[in-house]
Amino acid sequence: MPDETLDLLFREARSVNTFSDEPVKIDQVREVFELVKYGPTMMNIQPMRLLLVEQGAGRERLLPLMAEGNRAKTASAPVVAVVAADVDFHTSMAAHFPHNPTAGDMFAGDATSRADIARYNTALQTGYFIVGIRAAGLHAGPMGGFDAAAIDAEFFPGTSWRTQLVINIGHPGETPWFDRLPRISADDAVMTA
Amino acid sequence: MPDETLDLLFREARSVNTFSDEPVKIDQVREVFELVKYGPTMMNIQPMRLLLVEQGAGRERLLPLMAEGNRAKTASAPVVAVVAADVDFHTSMAAHFPHNPTAGDMFAGDATSRADIARYNTALQTGYFIVGIRAAGLHAGPMGGFDAAAIDAEFFPGTSWRTQLVINIGHPGETPWFDRLPRISADDAVMTA
Repeated sequence: MPDETLDLLFREARSVNTFSDEPVKIDQVREVFELVKYGPTMMNIQPMRLLLVEQGAGRERLLPLMAEGNRAKTASAPVVAVVAADVDFHTSMAAHFPHNPTAGDMFAGDATSRADIARYNTALQTGYFIVGIRAAGLHAGPMGGFDAAAIDAEFFPGTSWRTQLVINIGHPGETPWFDRLPRISADDAVMTA
Repeated sequence: MPDETLDLLFREARSVNTFSDEPVKIDQVREVFELVKYGPTMMNIQPMRLLLVEQGAGRERLLPLMAEGNRAKTASAPVVAVVAADVDFHTSMAAHFPHNPTAGDMFAGDATSRADIARYNTALQTGYFIVGIRAAGLHAGPMGGFDAAAIDAEFFPGTSWRTQLVINIGHPGETPWFDRLPRISADDAVMTA
């Protein structure tokens, strides 16, 4: 794979905090989803769900639920993706794991384990999604500072969607990112046996 | 980004179950780590750790700790990566979050929350890692069936590394994968507000 591709996806890619006026269409982000949904998950459960929040009324509902330090950038991003985990993924396993159509039954009785499995596999898929945003020529600004229960209550009442992460999506504006923070080296993070 | 790149990373990429004789060097996988470590994590904590298990004595220690259905493919893969989360990530935040060198202190008192944060961010990084394996021209076969506590006891005693996933890495052999399983569509997984 050419160096420019690896730079765009990883080495030069940066979490973006300010945005230019260049718009992002909801369909561009839906296309990213349609690409990254092919990434592997446990027993093909695919629990990641997205709420794409446009500028306007939806954004106004989201902003007060973000941590104060995240509000200005969340207000200015062309599109904001709320990444949620569907904790009732087991109800669609008959469709997604058709060679074993009752596989979902094994998860039916244990909501705590199901929430953990949904959270883990949604995080895996979120990794694919962030790479996919970059592959589409867009920039991602993931944020952990928000009131997840309040977002669930505002946007997902009565559903099995549980908010995990919020990602601003757009093109870089002025001074769009901080200096790159130090990364761990393989010498400290990789062992061999 | 050209269609062939997106096919290789997502659309045509498949979880591999059999392997050809083509070797994989430990250094190739370390290079994948050195690439994907640039993916974003919460406060740059980077909790993902890898144990790369070669053919031979290390592999023999791992095999009995895998679920029976995963042993044959785990035995034949050129390299096996045990993906672990470092639940004591906070002790290295002074190096990785240098503009706020005491940031790790906020995590020091709550091991339960720290384990959850380590697990979530390691899963995010595992998503980057699986894409990075593919970008390097290698194939990944992630597996959830193993005894995580037994792997921790065998390979990580007295450390803060906690096994989350095991990934076979190599090149496809004969009948290397099953038919592609159905994926969810954006119509069912993506909402707009």
